[in-house]
Formats: sequence, C-alpha cells, structure tokens
Amino acid sequence: MEYIFSDKLSNLKASAIREILKVTNDPSVISFAAGSPAPNAFPVEDIKRFLCDIMDNEPITALQYSITEGYPPLREAVKKRMQTQHNYVPEKDDIVITTGGQQSVELACKIFLNEGDIAVCESPSFVGSLNSAKSYNAKLVGIELDEEGIRADILEKTLEENRNVKLMYLIPNFHNPTGKCMSLERRKKVYELAQRYNVLIIEDNPYGDLRFDGEDIPTIKSMDTDGRVIYCSSFSKIVAPGLRVGFTSTAPEITAKMVACKQASDVHTTMLSQMICARFLTECDMDAHLTRLRAIYRQKYQLMADCIEKEFSSKVTFTKPQGGLFIWATVPEGADVLEFCNRAIAEKVAVVPGNAFMTDDTLPTRCFRMNFSTPTDDQIREGCAILGRISKEMFGE
Amino acid sequence: MEYIFSDKLSNLKASAIREILKVTNDPSVISFAAGSPAPNAFPVEDIKRFLCDIMDNEPITALQYSITEGYPPLREAVKKRMQTQHNYVPEKDDIVITTGGQQSVELACKIFLNEGDIAVCESPSFVGSLNSAKSYNAKLVGIELDEEGIRADILEKTLEENRNVKLMYLIPNFHNPTGKCMSLERRKKVYELAQRYNVLIIEDNPYGDLRFDGEDIPTIKSMDTDGRVIYCSSFSKIVAPGLRVGFTSTAPEITAKMVACKQASDVHTTMLSQMICARFLTECDMDAHLTRLRAIYRQKYQLMADCIEKEFSSKVTFTKPQGGLFIWATVPEGADVLEFCNRAIAEKVAVVPGNAFMTDDTLPTRCFRMNFSTPTDDQIREGCAILGRISKEMFGE
Repeated sequence: MEYIFSDKLSNLKASAIREILKVTNDPSVISFAAGSPAPNAFPVEDIKRFLCDIMDNEPITALQYSITEGYPPLREAVKKRMQTQHNYVPEKDDIVITTGGQQSVELACKIFLNEGDIAVCESPSFVGSLNSAKSYNAKLVGIELDEEGIRADILEKTLEENRNVKLMYLIPNFHNPTGKCMSLERRKKVYELAQRYNVLIIEDNPYGDLRFDGEDIPTIKSMDTDGRVIYCSSFSKIVAPGLRVGFTSTAPEITAKMVACKQASDVHTTMLSQMICARFLTECDMDAHLTRLRAIYRQKYQLMADCIEKEFSSKVTFTKPQGGLFIWATVPEGADVLEFCNRAIAEKVAVVPGNAFMTDDTLPTRCFRMNFSTPTDDQIREGCAILGRISKEMFGE
Repeated sequence: MEYIFSDKLSNLKASAIREILKVTNDPSVISFAAGSPAPNAFPVEDIKRFLCDIMDNEPITALQYSITEGYPPLREAVKKRMQTQHNYVPEKDDIVITTGGQQSVELACKIFLNEGDIAVCESPSFVGSLNSAKSYNAKLVGIELDEEGIRADILEKTLEENRNVKLMYLIPNFHNPTGKCMSLERRKKVYELAQRYNVLIIEDNPYGDLRFDGEDIPTIKSMDTDGRVIYCSSFSKIVAPGLRVGFTSTAPEITAKMVACKQASDVHTTMLSQMICARFLTECDMDAHLTRLRAIYRQKYQLMADCIEKEFSSKVTFTKPQGGLFIWATVPEGADVLEFCNRAIAEKVAVVPGNAFMTDDTLPTRCFRMNFSTPTDDQIREGCAILGRISKEMFGE
C-alpha cells in the first residue's frame, strides 16, 4: 500500500550526523565526529558492583513495572542534587525522570508545540533537539551566537516581530556544537526577554558538570521566578549514555503533562538504569568522580588545542571552550567547508560540517565541529596532523 | 506564568488505572488491578549471569551511545524468532527495537495520525495505547467484541461511514482487558476490511506467547500481503517489563519513519536491557522458558477461575481466557459496577472498573477486570472470597 504519513513529520529528515557516523563505523577512520563521552570516563567498576547488588537484593524492583514519574529513590537523589545546584526549589518545582535528556526535550516540545508554532534556538544548535521540535511541525528560528552566547539584539527583534514564539531552546553551558558558554549578563537578558514576551525556555544542560576551566555561571533556571524554565539534564555525560537516564526540573503543572505523555510513550524509564543512577548519586563520591572526569576532558581538550595550534593553517579559527566535548572551527571566507570535510573523510578523518547543526541544513556555513572526548590521544595527534595538512593545502599556511 | 498546552493534548487524561494503582501501594490491599507479569516468572538468575558477563566483557558497548534501530545482535535474534512465527519476512519487513511495546504503538500513532484522524479500536481496549492515539488528538471509535473478537459487522459499518479512518488498533491474542482471543475467521475478515477501506492495522501482541490452553491462531501480520500491518510486541511479558524492551516488525518505509521519530524521542533503548534480551534469545532455551511461564499462568488462572466458580454470585459472568493475564467480569443488568468496585476497595480488594478501558471513561459499563498473574495464591483465594461475598450481597446468590 502507499503510506500517507502525518503532516507533522513533513520537515523531519534523518540527521546528517547519522550518515557521517555510519562512515565512522569503519575502524580505520579517525572520528572527531561523535558526541560521545570518553569511554575511560565510565565508572565501570561501580556500575558492575551496583548491578550485582541489585540482582542479589532487589531483583523484582529492577524487573517489574514501575511508576512513570521515576524510581522514587532516584527522584529524591536528583532533587537533592538539583537543590544544591539551585535548579530545583521544593516549593515550586517537581522532577520527572526521562529516558535520556533527549526525552526531556521531546516531551517539553510535545506538550507545548502546536503545528506552526515558532521555537527559537541558537544557530547552530543540537540537531537532536531541533528534530524533536520539527517532529511536531514547529517552525524553528535560529539566532546566531557571539562570544557571550545567543545574540540578545537579534533575539529581541525576533520576539518583537513574531508573536507566536512559544519557546526558546537553549544550551547555555558548553553549547553543542560550538563549545561556547553563555555569559551571566546574557543569561539575565535572555530571561528578561522571555518574561517580556511571555515565552518558555527549555534550558538544556547536559554538559554543565564538565567544566574544566573557569568558574561556574548560574543557570537560567536558578533565576526563574515565573516557572517559565524547563530545565533538562542527563546522566549521559556524567555516568553513561547507554543507560538512557535524564531528568527535567520544572513547575509541577508542566511535569504532570510530561508524565501523562511519557506514560503513553514508554510507561517508565528502564529500572536497572534508574537504580544504577540512584546508587551512584547516593553511594559514590560525586565530587571526586567529577574531578576525575574534568581532568580527562581537560587533558584531551588541551591536547587537541595544542595539535590544532601546531598543525592547522592559521586561516582556520577555533573556539576555546572551558568545558564540554566540542571545538568549533571556522574556515576562511570564500572557502568551501564541505570540500574540506569531504577531503578529510577521503583521508579517513571524520568531522561534522556545520550545516548539520543549522535549522535548515541546506544553508551554507564556514564551520565544522571537532569532538575531543571520544578519540584516543594518538588519534587526536594523527587526525589533527591530517586535517592540518589538508587545511594548509586548501587555505595556505 | 499561565501555561497554554498544545491542542493535541486536549483529550489526554491521566489513566484511571493509575489512580487505582496508587491505592494498591498499600501492602494491606489485595490487588487484582495490575497488569504485571508474575514476579516468579522472571528469569532472575539468567539476567544476573548476563549482567556479570556483559560488565566483564563488553562494558563499553553497554554504556556508550548506540544506534537508534537497536542493538544489532538483538535485531538479528528478533528477526529470526519473528520469522519462525511468520511475523517477519526478510524481503518485505524490517525490525526496530523500541523502549517497550508501548513505544512501538506510540511511534506508529505519531508517524501516521493527524489531529482529527480516526483510529478504530476494540471497546474496551488497553488504555495505554488509547492514550498514545489521544496524545496526537486522534478521534477514537471503539467497537464492541463478541466471543470471536471485534464485531466485524459494526467494524464494516464504521469504515463505510467514516472515510478518514487511518488505522485500527487491535489486540487479537488474549485481549486486554477481556482476555478474549480473536478467531481465525474474524482475523481474515478484519484484514479483508482493512484492505477494502485502505486502513492500517496496529497488531499489538504482547501476550501471544502466554497461551496456556488451546491452539495458536495465525497473526494478522502473517496474512499481510500489502504491508499494512504494524506488528508490535515486547519482552515485558516473556522476560521482564522493567527492562523496557519492545519491537515492531513492519514495512521498511514505516520503520524508517519510526526510527527518525525515535531518534528525536530517546536516541535509542537502554543498552543493558537490549543486551540482556539478545542473550536471552540466543543463549537460553526459549521453548523451555515459555513452557515454565505457561504452567505458572495456567495454574494461577485455574485457581482464580475455581475461586470465582465457588465464591461469586451466579449473576456475575466471566470470560474464560486461554492465555494472557486477565479475566473480564460482567455484573447483572441494572447493577452498579462502580459501587461494587468501591465496596471492594473499602474491603481492601482492588479490581479495575470497565470504564477505565473505554474510549470515553465516562461511559457506563457493567464490567470489571481481574488480573490473576500478579497476586499470590493466598491473595487470589482471600480476594475472591471477599469479592464473592460482596457480589452475593449486591446481586444475590
């Protein structure tokens, strides 16, 4: 038969990154294309110990159906941690555990976006979240970033000119793909604009705990007096992404709708994963763990930054992130970044061309994303040498 | 701020069963209200062995990001098993692994249903799936069942009168909540009507392997020549629901759209869960396991059926399922089934009133659902004695 799919999917395409990641399945390819945490950052021994203990002492809790809101000890542990981070206020907020941070964003889009509503985002932005909004046929308006994050002047103009903006999707900390961190002043300005134009904010913060340089900056959620910020985060970057555990902290009216939709979507998040994360928060020294992770990421970032400095054409510029997983590169004006990426792939090094992160991936960019968390040190050195040589051939010394 | 939620949620309510299940958290309540498998049916030792082995030998595979379609060895094992069950044809179908059978149904609804489209279902039906369709603002039309399943005469009339029916949602095997099994003739007739009116079928089959009496009946999927059946099933009833692993077998054009939406929804299903299910299918004797499960369910069903026979008013009638988890009871005409359920709760026995399974839960019914898989034998005896006494007080001997 001929299939007539829902109208709401009309702007949803398979992600360009997905296609690139297929190439990187070839083990002879050095991949700077992924967005995965460093495998040596996973607390394998802790997780193994928890799993043995769970299966010895609480197997039925791990294997039976549970409630949609989340495993109660995990919700309590997340509340406690989010309270110390000023992202949860007991009198005003509730927490729902989700199947990865992706589901937090997807549920927030589902409960608020009608077809044709506008969602504002940074441009570039994380394509997975853009696709969540696209899968409800929302219109995405991307706003460029400067060194302090999303440009407030363009944001204000956009909100003034479009009165059906429903929400903003923002990654203030170590933004994917640029690695940029939104300044405190900019966060305050963005929140003020959200108030003035009565817009919700999805604040996506998967990388906030991975700061390896500089000082923490308060979240937008911590400034929220109106219940307009839907704070989304995840255990993917601080424990392990394969577990698929994320969470949202926001007003109870919002979590109630998210729970109703989550129940109709996957009933609840995998219990073993939730129980591992609960034990990690309550039985492990999270500060010591994060110190170890930050040291891994700092070393990998510094190595890649040094290799870039040494190998690349001086015509290519790079962001200098203080955390997260990504460096964002810009080739000279008039240069063809897609040709650069294709030549890199031909020489078995994968980076992601910038258009993959745009609201419309047919728009031209001069950028590409490099990930430093997943490759080994040798791969970072070898891959940067190859990319550097190509950059000099294409753009000069 | 005041929240304006998406129009598509306007008919989505928290499930009535959820509210009842909250009462059953009280350990002094005997619950026949759940839809959970028998805890002693979980293969705890196998799962523990798999988890230890996975964490010893493949921890990074278990903890890192993976592909949306599903863990490749699990997809292969499911394909093989579905092929032997005639629910997968290599040349015509593809398999996507989902976060429980619920996600299979939700994704199928998402990719096909526009707001206002009609979805036809059995009435009563599984409220979780009805909510998946409601969460996209589809209009549900429920069709009553007779002893052979959904009534074909009413179905034909409905399809004739409503030309915007997009899909049918059906549970042919050991239907939830009635326990009924659709006859072979009725399945053929339903498929013929789907062809004639060009309607898709979501065939939900979580209970098919739990037949404890009678002969297997071919699935509607096995008759599908057009690629119009979206077959959904799950490991929840044959391994464990807390793992949250389900799957869909259908035409590749359909699985491709489901994968695009799943990627924007939860990226992929928890790896530990997928790896457990893969090993269960490839390393365990599934036939022996299912023989053991069927014996557990046969015994529990027979005990509840015997207690009903002995204790209940003869005015209350019951279905006699050959598999699954549920018995469906009907009180005499003119009797108030809600009063019966409320008196039962007051005496600390929980059953689910039939209206919870209707497309509109404000419609009156004379029915209630009893689950025999979760309670212990003693709870079955004691609970049936209490329900029986109330039934005789309300409806006579």
